[in-house]
Amino acid sequence: MTIKSYMQTLGTQAREASRVIAAAKTSLKNQALLAIADALDRDRENLLAANAVDMENGRKNGLDAALLDRLELNPARIDGMIEGLQQVSELPDPIGEITDLQDRPSGIKLGKMRVPLGVVGIIYESRPNVTIDAASLCLKSGNATILRGGSEAIASNQAIASCISCGLQAVGLPENVVQVINTTDRAAVGELITMPEYVDVIVPRGGKGLIERISSDARVPVIKHLDGNCHVYIDDQADLEKAVAIALNAKTHRYGVCNAMESLLVAEPVAAQVLPELAALYAEQAVELRGCDKTCGIIEGVNPATEQDWFEEYLAPILAIKVVAGLDEAIEHINHYSSQHTESIVTENTAHAERFMREVDSSSVMVNASTRFADGFEYGLGAEIGISTDKIHARGPVGLEGLTSQKWVVYGNGQIRQ
Amino acid sequence: MTIKSYMQTLGTQAREASRVIAAAKTSLKNQALLAIADALDRDRENLLAANAVDMENGRKNGLDAALLDRLELNPARIDGMIEGLQQVSELPDPIGEITDLQDRPSGIKLGKMRVPLGVVGIIYESRPNVTIDAASLCLKSGNATILRGGSEAIASNQAIASCISCGLQAVGLPENVVQVINTTDRAAVGELITMPEYVDVIVPRGGKGLIERISSDARVPVIKHLDGNCHVYIDDQADLEKAVAIALNAKTHRYGVCNAMESLLVAEPVAAQVLPELAALYAEQAVELRGCDKTCGIIEGVNPATEQDWFEEYLAPILAIKVVAGLDEAIEHINHYSSQHTESIVTENTAHAERFMREVDSSSVMVNASTRFADGFEYGLGAEIGISTDKIHARGPVGLEGLTSQKWVVYGNGQIRQ
Repeated sequence: MTIKSYMQTLGTQAREASRVIAAAKTSLKNQALLAIADALDRDRENLLAANAVDMENGRKNGLDAALLDRLELNPARIDGMIEGLQQVSELPDPIGEITDLQDRPSGIKLGKMRVPLGVVGIIYESRPNVTIDAASLCLKSGNATILRGGSEAIASNQAIASCISCGLQAVGLPENVVQVINTTDRAAVGELITMPEYVDVIVPRGGKGLIERISSDARVPVIKHLDGNCHVYIDDQADLEKAVAIALNAKTHRYGVCNAMESLLVAEPVAAQVLPELAALYAEQAVELRGCDKTCGIIEGVNPATEQDWFEEYLAPILAIKVVAGLDEAIEHINHYSSQHTESIVTENTAHAERFMREVDSSSVMVNASTRFADGFEYGLGAEIGISTDKIHARGPVGLEGLTSQKWVVYGNGQIRQ
Repeated sequence: MTIKSYMQTLGTQAREASRVIAAAKTSLKNQALLAIADALDRDRENLLAANAVDMENGRKNGLDAALLDRLELNPARIDGMIEGLQQVSELPDPIGEITDLQDRPSGIKLGKMRVPLGVVGIIYESRPNVTIDAASLCLKSGNATILRGGSEAIASNQAIASCISCGLQAVGLPENVVQVINTTDRAAVGELITMPEYVDVIVPRGGKGLIERISSDARVPVIKHLDGNCHVYIDDQADLEKAVAIALNAKTHRYGVCNAMESLLVAEPVAAQVLPELAALYAEQAVELRGCDKTCGIIEGVNPATEQDWFEEYLAPILAIKVVAGLDEAIEHINHYSSQHTESIVTENTAHAERFMREVDSSSVMVNASTRFADGFEYGLGAEIGISTDKIHARGPVGLEGLTSQKWVVYGNGQIRQ
């Protein structure tokens, strides 16, 4: 079988299964999630053995320590997958909800019903637990899924796939509701992202390179999560104690995450007051500072920032700092350099806060809070399939609702158009 | 100037203007709409003269009567554009609305703010009044627009563009909030749909060929409106009086519209009762019937339907009729052959209605109402920029809200992540 015909088979099967899962009752979907959890629990030995094969191959192929760590399954991580499934089973089911009901002058009653997207394709890298995360969110939101994990995790993913299949069959759902691609051939990705007749949306999870490649080649809509060049702006009307706490937390709480601050903007009137204190705290954490001329004039040991620094997502203990005249320049800087992920203003001035909230064009905008809050769990979504830096369809953390759409429903009593 | 650099100039200008219009107050946007209406009113002579040039060229180029009719501006149509602007000025402004406010356990207050998409590209054919429709909806929803009308309407569109520009400047808004492409070179469309750095979404309005071409070449998200192969299903539990009225209205109220019924499905138990009456009524309107074997057995003068007929959007006095066993077969047929636009069930059985509403995967699903109600005005959207047959972002009639997105807003008081 060629890759093309293999993928078309998967697509046809997914489309068929999507009709069944779209119409499935909440209780049945929850039973399926718990049955998959049971299957994982029963199959622990198999899962660890399959993962050992991947780990061994990974070592042979020279994967670095960080990648090997992400690839590893251990009893605690299997527990994590089981807990994740239980948590998703407890989330409210968005499907079938009817909102915005209104009577129209024609006599029809109009509303919107929340429905699944249909078939979701998910493309991800090394971590095998994403297989469960992604499958569970898609299942709960009534979608069929085609999953494509990293080639280095193929054995682990196949073992997880058979648990999923087992759980689906145990409750009488078609196993094709969740399909895991069983080949590491890259051509499979090429097919997956170019069959709009079978796939309604693609969610890539991984590095920027992967996502850009997929977006550029896809013929199916893509929910993109590109980089997080997040900003904190300390306003001239800021409470400087809050400002210091937020600017420290946003940078140093974790470095390798997309909602970490990468650039700090400080209003000129308070720069000389707040920057030395912050510089001392960053020095304690060994954060490298790169500043504009004014910043370099206020604090010592700062490297001059280049134009490129303002665009940078360091994902590292490095911070770019710019002194700005005030709110206008801050908004302008952010709208020019930001990746439109998350930005925060520290201010006690309501009018400044409101302008920042309204005019900064990013998926999350905050007042007096750390950018690190931009996260599906912190936002109460229960879980997230990703964080979208797109504007179309879903923006920011994407939970169950991002995997759904709304259709119009009309209730009449024989009405015809005059 | 090459087309590429011309389009990049338009893109840069649109992106800049989008910041201004996104932050503009409702009252200013409404003043702009009314100022454009005034400019049209003052410029009637110019508009008619410009349109006369297009009409003259159209006749020379052999445009058919239908196209010439769509191209024509006359005093009544100018009145229509002016009224349209007034109506849009009276619509509620969706921008800035904050919903779903909730307190999170971390102490932050979380909500969603409705925001413009940014820059909307609209590509349309002959009717010059679309220039005003599209510009007014984009302006009201806080978006900058780049408009590309049909080459046959270039003089009319340029005349309308100068009224728009005049109105914007009269209230102090940048004229680049609405830009009308001033060349008929096709390469301009190619540029417009492949500059995601300047354009956030493309809305093509026109024939299926245009839309398919644009979707296939675009690198910017496209809100598509493909065909409307709409169905009415007469259930075995239908009130046959309602069924006859709806089936007649859905087919014959207007033929050339996307929400007209193209296929009629009838449950076998009521087929012999309802089809002869319907056939007589269709005969009065000279509607050609194409039926399945069973239909041909019940009524006379019916041509046999081919497989292709079930896929067809006739946009003409032609109707395909199929007798189905019941609800299951009806849903299956629709989900297989429909273009996912609008489908209606006629039934008095609530359980049947609910299954149809839930399981039919189309942008509008109806009970006991004519498919002709699937329309932005009937749905109370005030106006529509199009009807989306996509599932992502906007589905069905797209009004102001479809030209917006929501961003997350977080109000804190110094909160940091623990």
